[in-house]
Amino acid sequence: MRVILSINAGSSSVKISVYAAEHGQAPSQLAEAQLSGLTSPPAELKYSRKDVTVCKDKKVGEDVKSQDDAFKVLLKTLVEDSDLAEISKKDDIAIACHRIVHGGDYTTSQKITEDTYHHLEALTDLAPLHNASALEIVKSCMAELPKATNVACFDSQFHSSIPEHIRTYPINPEIAKSNQLKKYGFHGISYQFITNSVSRFLSKLPKDLNIIALHLGSGASACAIKAGKSWDTSMGLTPLAGLPGATRSGSVDPSLVFHYASDVGKLSPSSTKELHISRAEEILNKESGWKALTGTTNFGIIAASDEPKHKLAFDLFVDRICGFVGSYYVSLGGKVDALVFAGGIGEKSDKLRRRVVEQVSCLGFEVDDALNGKQIEDVVQDVGKKGAKHRTLVCLTDEQFEMARGCAEDPELK
Amino acid sequence: MRVILSINAGSSSVKISVYAAEHGQAPSQLAEAQLSGLTSPPAELKYSRKDVTVCKDKKVGEDVKSQDDAFKVLLKTLVEDSDLAEISKKDDIAIACHRIVHGGDYTTSQKITEDTYHHLEALTDLAPLHNASALEIVKSCMAELPKATNVACFDSQFHSSIPEHIRTYPINPEIAKSNQLKKYGFHGISYQFITNSVSRFLSKLPKDLNIIALHLGSGASACAIKAGKSWDTSMGLTPLAGLPGATRSGSVDPSLVFHYASDVGKLSPSSTKELHISRAEEILNKESGWKALTGTTNFGIIAASDEPKHKLAFDLFVDRICGFVGSYYVSLGGKVDALVFAGGIGEKSDKLRRRVVEQVSCLGFEVDDALNGKQIEDVVQDVGKKGAKHRTLVCLTDEQFEMARGCAEDPELK
Repeated sequence: MRVILSINAGSSSVKISVYAAEHGQAPSQLAEAQLSGLTSPPAELKYSRKDVTVCKDKKVGEDVKSQDDAFKVLLKTLVEDSDLAEISKKDDIAIACHRIVHGGDYTTSQKITEDTYHHLEALTDLAPLHNASALEIVKSCMAELPKATNVACFDSQFHSSIPEHIRTYPINPEIAKSNQLKKYGFHGISYQFITNSVSRFLSKLPKDLNIIALHLGSGASACAIKAGKSWDTSMGLTPLAGLPGATRSGSVDPSLVFHYASDVGKLSPSSTKELHISRAEEILNKESGWKALTGTTNFGIIAASDEPKHKLAFDLFVDRICGFVGSYYVSLGGKVDALVFAGGIGEKSDKLRRRVVEQVSCLGFEVDDALNGKQIEDVVQDVGKKGAKHRTLVCLTDEQFEMARGCAEDPELK
Repeated sequence: MRVILSINAGSSSVKISVYAAEHGQAPSQLAEAQLSGLTSPPAELKYSRKDVTVCKDKKVGEDVKSQDDAFKVLLKTLVEDSDLAEISKKDDIAIACHRIVHGGDYTTSQKITEDTYHHLEALTDLAPLHNASALEIVKSCMAELPKATNVACFDSQFHSSIPEHIRTYPINPEIAKSNQLKKYGFHGISYQFITNSVSRFLSKLPKDLNIIALHLGSGASACAIKAGKSWDTSMGLTPLAGLPGATRSGSVDPSLVFHYASDVGKLSPSSTKELHISRAEEILNKESGWKALTGTTNFGIIAASDEPKHKLAFDLFVDRICGFVGSYYVSLGGKVDALVFAGGIGEKSDKLRRRVVEQVSCLGFEVDDALNGKQIEDVVQDVGKKGAKHRTLVCLTDEQFEMARGCAEDPELK
């Protein structure tokens, strides 16, 4: 039995899930610890052991500000919990796997060595807003857990199967090559989990499975999955492209930002010597999306409200989602086993699901209002009408589990 | 009888079509003169009177470089042609209508007065790459044809019907409002012509007509037309968004250009005191597209070739087009009277049409190879298979005619 930590650093939170795993078997979860609200301190700790909630909304010191600070608090919480018998000391942790957003050309998870670490650092140039904090945590792990194997799981790796004519941008190919400019795609750990789970639910091998998957959260994307592999996805070189998110614009006219403000090409004050972030990227990633339209990042409030600005944000999101569903339906040649909703919004907002499915009903999707109105509790739950041409499902996606599963199954990590 | 000039300034050419029109009747064409190759002088003149080709590939002086230079040569050609009886002197021209790409919030064509001219000048800020040369010609017309009425026909006006949730960008709404940042859409004069022509061809009133129209030329776009009006289109704040073109990237990750070169926020050397063009906009509008991928702007060469780089550019274009067809099929709720191809490539490349229709066949479109292989000679020609769920048509679009028709019918221009 090995103990695996799955570490998932978000923009204002860090989550660690702890698993016990026999080699080649599915990991089983022991505990879960999360620190959230890093951007509005004091951050809050939530910690549960199996089904026991140990603490919730527990404020931690104002000095816990970075993702790395949060990681250290969480690690201490796990090690000092005498009821978590599997981790009595740091050395009990065999594997620490890290969700890294941008994996460049990596097509599989990577054991992190001195060498890979430098590769990963170089990738930060492509995704300064997304990779930097996860790498800080990797560094801490290497120092604090010298006995553990660190593994980088990339959000982009699932999409390495996207064919060349879809992945290529119509720009100067020499510059595209030297600057690594192509569609990478993200949320891939989630899409891998969705593929595996829907495959089991429908009793179809992944190689026979075609789905349109929607990972809808404060970051949102769509993915056309053909024969179990990514065929197209809405995010691009960076997570900015495609659907709007809580603070992201999604795809907008690439000229737009030059008409937004005159200093957009300049470095943002939040850049460092190592990390170059333009004002433009900051505006489009951090100051846009439904927060900009409505004032809230909470999509639940938006979905429940009749205020015109909320209605506009809701309708806009539905329109953009349906655009991708139509587009991917065509790229899958209409051979679609299911439309699958996942992510915080996809799992929680029955209203959003209903509106999307109604709007794509001409393709043969139909929602069952009773099923759709139920709480989503199973890993995969059917919300489509019986007899509809195509199925509609919801999947409780679990990136941490997917990372742990990958590590447990990896023969090189025996 | 009034003589109407329709003036269409492209990026390296200017075309004037001459019409005779009785008020309220369809204009009839008298002559057509075109100067092309302005960016690789000497430019070449083509001039025909009705069905008589007066000259073709006639080189003009090296000093003819700008669109305005070209206009003056064309005007002289028309006035000095003694066989064009309807224009014996400049004052015989009653109306000069001008294709202006960006019309901002104008929802109809505008008679150009001192006042509107200043409005139009202000709009150039939104589209410095597109409006400037047409405005130079407007200025010349006001000086050279003092008796003529000048009319601005906007490529954006057809799209003023796009609903708010589709037109809005998810960005700060105050800045969007003050900087006029929203989806405008272009190729609207062409889409208006297509709507009128397909409406007649299918014997359906425009108000009952739903089509997916593709204007595919060196600039390319798609449009969902619902009840005869624009419901969505692929271009955005500027013509850059959406489909790739001969030298345009189309939609790419809005972050991309910041990873392309470090000086993208700076003004391009081709900027003037009045016109601010960022390097980024120049790269994405002028140095990308299939020219960047293949070395040629000629899509005919690309479609006919088996070279990998040509095949890639072809497949990429087909993929992006089909994405919009799927997306617009959904936004029209599957109620689609026809998929309509237009523009230089849409009208000439039977191979592109076949590939697109095959790829969207799951929606019920089917091409008839024999019909599709024929020369397109009628204004609207059927290329779809008999019995297919939805029709597939080709339309020989004619922006100059559409502008002249609008002027001939306008009661304020009596």
